[in-house]
Amino acid sequence: MRIANITGRLALVAEDRALDVETASEGRFHSDPAAVFADWESFAAWGTEIDVAAHPLSTPLQASALAAPSPRPRQVIGVGLNYADHAAESGLPLPEQPVVFTKFASSVAGPDVDVQLPGDTVDWEAELVVVVGRGGRNIAEADALSHIAGYTVGQDLSERTVQWQGTPAQFSMGKSFENFAPTGPVLATLDEFADHNNLAIQTLIIGPDGTETRVQDSSTTQLVFPVADLISRLSRTIELLPGDLIFTGTPPGVGMGMDPQRFLQDGETLRTEIEGIGAIVQRFHA
Amino acid sequence: MRIANITGRLALVAEDRALDVETASEGRFHSDPAAVFADWESFAAWGTEIDVAAHPLSTPLQASALAAPSPRPRQVIGVGLNYADHAAESGLPLPEQPVVFTKFASSVAGPDVDVQLPGDTVDWEAELVVVVGRGGRNIAEADALSHIAGYTVGQDLSERTVQWQGTPAQFSMGKSFENFAPTGPVLATLDEFADHNNLAIQTLIIGPDGTETRVQDSSTTQLVFPVADLISRLSRTIELLPGDLIFTGTPPGVGMGMDPQRFLQDGETLRTEIEGIGAIVQRFHA
Repeated sequence: MRIANITGRLALVAEDRALDVETASEGRFHSDPAAVFADWESFAAWGTEIDVAAHPLSTPLQASALAAPSPRPRQVIGVGLNYADHAAESGLPLPEQPVVFTKFASSVAGPDVDVQLPGDTVDWEAELVVVVGRGGRNIAEADALSHIAGYTVGQDLSERTVQWQGTPAQFSMGKSFENFAPTGPVLATLDEFADHNNLAIQTLIIGPDGTETRVQDSSTTQLVFPVADLISRLSRTIELLPGDLIFTGTPPGVGMGMDPQRFLQDGETLRTEIEGIGAIVQRFHA
Repeated sequence: MRIANITGRLALVAEDRALDVETASEGRFHSDPAAVFADWESFAAWGTEIDVAAHPLSTPLQASALAAPSPRPRQVIGVGLNYADHAAESGLPLPEQPVVFTKFASSVAGPDVDVQLPGDTVDWEAELVVVVGRGGRNIAEADALSHIAGYTVGQDLSERTVQWQGTPAQFSMGKSFENFAPTGPVLATLDEFADHNNLAIQTLIIGPDGTETRVQDSSTTQLVFPVADLISRLSRTIELLPGDLIFTGTPPGVGMGMDPQRFLQDGETLRTEIEGIGAIVQRFHA
């Protein structure tokens, strides 16, 4: 099952068709995409039975109308240094426990947005984002997958100067400017993937002249703390809540790790894609 | 005006009387305490006209039924090192910008709770907590007070071993265990204070035998970044949202800064009071 937020209404999507959930369910499920996580399992049981493309009420998908699949998360949990090569390029040791920060909720955005550059050291971080379905504390690793609604694509945009200023370092501030947590285009449930632990993840920078540069190209097999382990560890401290977002960390290839360092410029576009989910795009402006 | 969350219903309170808002307003305002922040100004205009103690529908206040005044904040912004003497006892330089972390929303609790100690280095931090009324970005310092719903009392409970483990330090994890963000007993609007920038703030530890030890005793006049300045600075990065909590930092006197260090023990009770608001209490269990 693939769901999307289409201008604030929950939809099921398949290929190039979308189906409004409230209409198709005759009001059983609310149109608000944030409300679906309160009883995720009932919704998922209903939604997986629907053949969207063949449904008489389905309509063409308008990609430009897509917003964040989980638009009002109670908690946005960022995980740093969760790919070994990225920890190395950041000059930091491999963590013994997940390195956690937040991206404040007001930075959450949809899959196709414009971003005003708040500084001259804005960097990209392609990330697999877990959307929590069923909440909980002290979740065993073996039970962790049952707490996941699905995966979406995220960018953990980071203003590096702000992130690293002060003691302790200001990760949560450097990563929370407007539209710095774009997500989408859809939430895909785990049954959509042949192997949900092995997904290609990549970032392209597209210049104002259309030149494409692939800067990140990896696989989620490289996660230091894989998704189930991560959920288990996080839930020993934080109660996970329905609709929460977990940004699971980025593979190598960020601008901060390049020699010379290279950051996002006015007129550039970022395209982040994860196998089996889709791509999100941000356009940057000075 | 003083408002409280009484077992999930919004109430106006005065001295030892409480008035259910939905009932008294004949349904104009919703009973959900979290909903009131969506149109704070309309509510405040109505609520300040009510004489709670004289109102025919008011009932005796049951202190044991109080919950968090803003129970579902979209963002919980923690500010560290915001009293000069506390920065010194923490061994850290005085910050040039607010030091920001989050207390994840699942740690938010009411004013009278039991806390399971997750480790043997749990410390106290008495804090004035700002509750946001009207949201916004790039708020001028001169306009900041108009964005405040009111003040409440908070404890920024901190497991110091977890907080300081890893690189960067894990403030948001060390401060987000269950019930680690107790708040209350009421939200008091700024007109309730003779000088809302000069409030006595203190923490008492009460031993199992009833012995009281005053460990923090200061005034909010000592804030490095006073409330209006803090709101202005934070809003340059983060869009403030209605109902958000801002934990404004703690004065000196935490256990980590003592020689020898001293942390909370099984059977101890913490009582944190701020002038003009009231007191919150936590009981600790191993």
